[in-house]
Amino acid sequence: MSHVHTWDLSTNPTKVAVIVAGGRGLRMGVDTPKQFLELKGRPILIHTLETFLLSYPDMQIVLVLPADHLDQGKKMTADLPGKERIRFTTGGETRFHSVQNGLRTLTQPAIVFVHDAVRCLLTVSLIRRCFEQACLLGSAIPVIPATDSIRLMEGEQSRALPRAQIRIVQTPQTFRSDILLPAYETPYRTDFTDEASVVEHRGIPVRLIEGEERNRKITEPIDLLIAAEYLHTS
Amino acid sequence: MSHVHTWDLSTNPTKVAVIVAGGRGLRMGVDTPKQFLELKGRPILIHTLETFLLSYPDMQIVLVLPADHLDQGKKMTADLPGKERIRFTTGGETRFHSVQNGLRTLTQPAIVFVHDAVRCLLTVSLIRRCFEQACLLGSAIPVIPATDSIRLMEGEQSRALPRAQIRIVQTPQTFRSDILLPAYETPYRTDFTDEASVVEHRGIPVRLIEGEERNRKITEPIDLLIAAEYLHTS
Repeated sequence: MSHVHTWDLSTNPTKVAVIVAGGRGLRMGVDTPKQFLELKGRPILIHTLETFLLSYPDMQIVLVLPADHLDQGKKMTADLPGKERIRFTTGGETRFHSVQNGLRTLTQPAIVFVHDAVRCLLTVSLIRRCFEQACLLGSAIPVIPATDSIRLMEGEQSRALPRAQIRIVQTPQTFRSDILLPAYETPYRTDFTDEASVVEHRGIPVRLIEGEERNRKITEPIDLLIAAEYLHTS
Repeated sequence: MSHVHTWDLSTNPTKVAVIVAGGRGLRMGVDTPKQFLELKGRPILIHTLETFLLSYPDMQIVLVLPADHLDQGKKMTADLPGKERIRFTTGGETRFHSVQNGLRTLTQPAIVFVHDAVRCLLTVSLIRRCFEQACLLGSAIPVIPATDSIRLMEGEQSRALPRAQIRIVQTPQTFRSDILLPAYETPYRTDFTDEASVVEHRGIPVRLIEGEERNRKITEPIDLLIAAEYLHTS
């Protein structure tokens, strides 16, 4: 693609992770947003922040929180090593708006990682691979193959999709800021389910990268137990 | 559809579960096929068989095993209450061939449940709902919504699919035998990833039904831990 120029890794590009913790976690059946639930004695969100802070000594974080949980988030991170690299903003009506709020805090060109706070099991290794590919190719979207058959609803009917061609999309969805920021200067659409779909809407193809089985989204109470087992065994 | 006639539940149709345990479980990184791995002290397969045996007192089971594990399977089930309702056959080259082998043991019209042995967390309630819908509508394919974004590979490129229309397919895929058996009189195709795709290839639409989040396929070592947690909390 003529409009994507490789960024030179040796120039040490700025790294900013926009961690989206705007959700209200209604599926958990509790009042606490799921990113604040405890896993091995600490909030899910803290596990996520630690992995990003560890990944690169110059990784900066923009934490997007629900407005009425902003104080809680600030308090929670007050003793975290590396907390001086975290800045805060509040979430919007949808994920799109929350990411847009986070991106507005950027002040210079950067590699931007947009990550779900509730995917707290990602590894440093995945973050680094995303960084390197995004420098070279402009974007890095982690995906894993499907182990189940997948169908597409079409009105009352449904049809099987070719499983070998299906990919399950994860985060951090990683982009060079000169690709991501212009893409977010667009009105919201309901088919914007992730950052890749926003960038593609602008006509720019995204590049996939191998994700991680363990990098699951915590959406159900059982996922907390799964996550605890992963932390126990890894 | 003119060719699907409702079966009367009051006539108590024959019920046969074809439990497919033909896989070699290479992803587990161990030599034991994954359906024989232990969960809470008993093989995964035994958990699955027990739920089917419990679901209806007249549920019959056709257990499809790898040829070199047939003796192991017979020994394993020797003390199982209801073992007289289990018959055995051996698996084929693919899942399609294994199911075909299982179906060849049927001797009378029945509601047929085709189930992955490694989905050992399904509930009696799901089996009953599948039975009732298959009697009425000819088929019942359990599905759950997608919580992740899904993409379809198209050569080197990929495109986002509309998430709200995506369904993740589970088992038991349940059919009236007059629909399922004729569909299996066809040569194997690589796009037969499940029973629904075989039936549709014959031009018969399938009917979806609400599946269960807990009804996951055990494909990775971590899934064993997940399953243990489900059994612990339910």
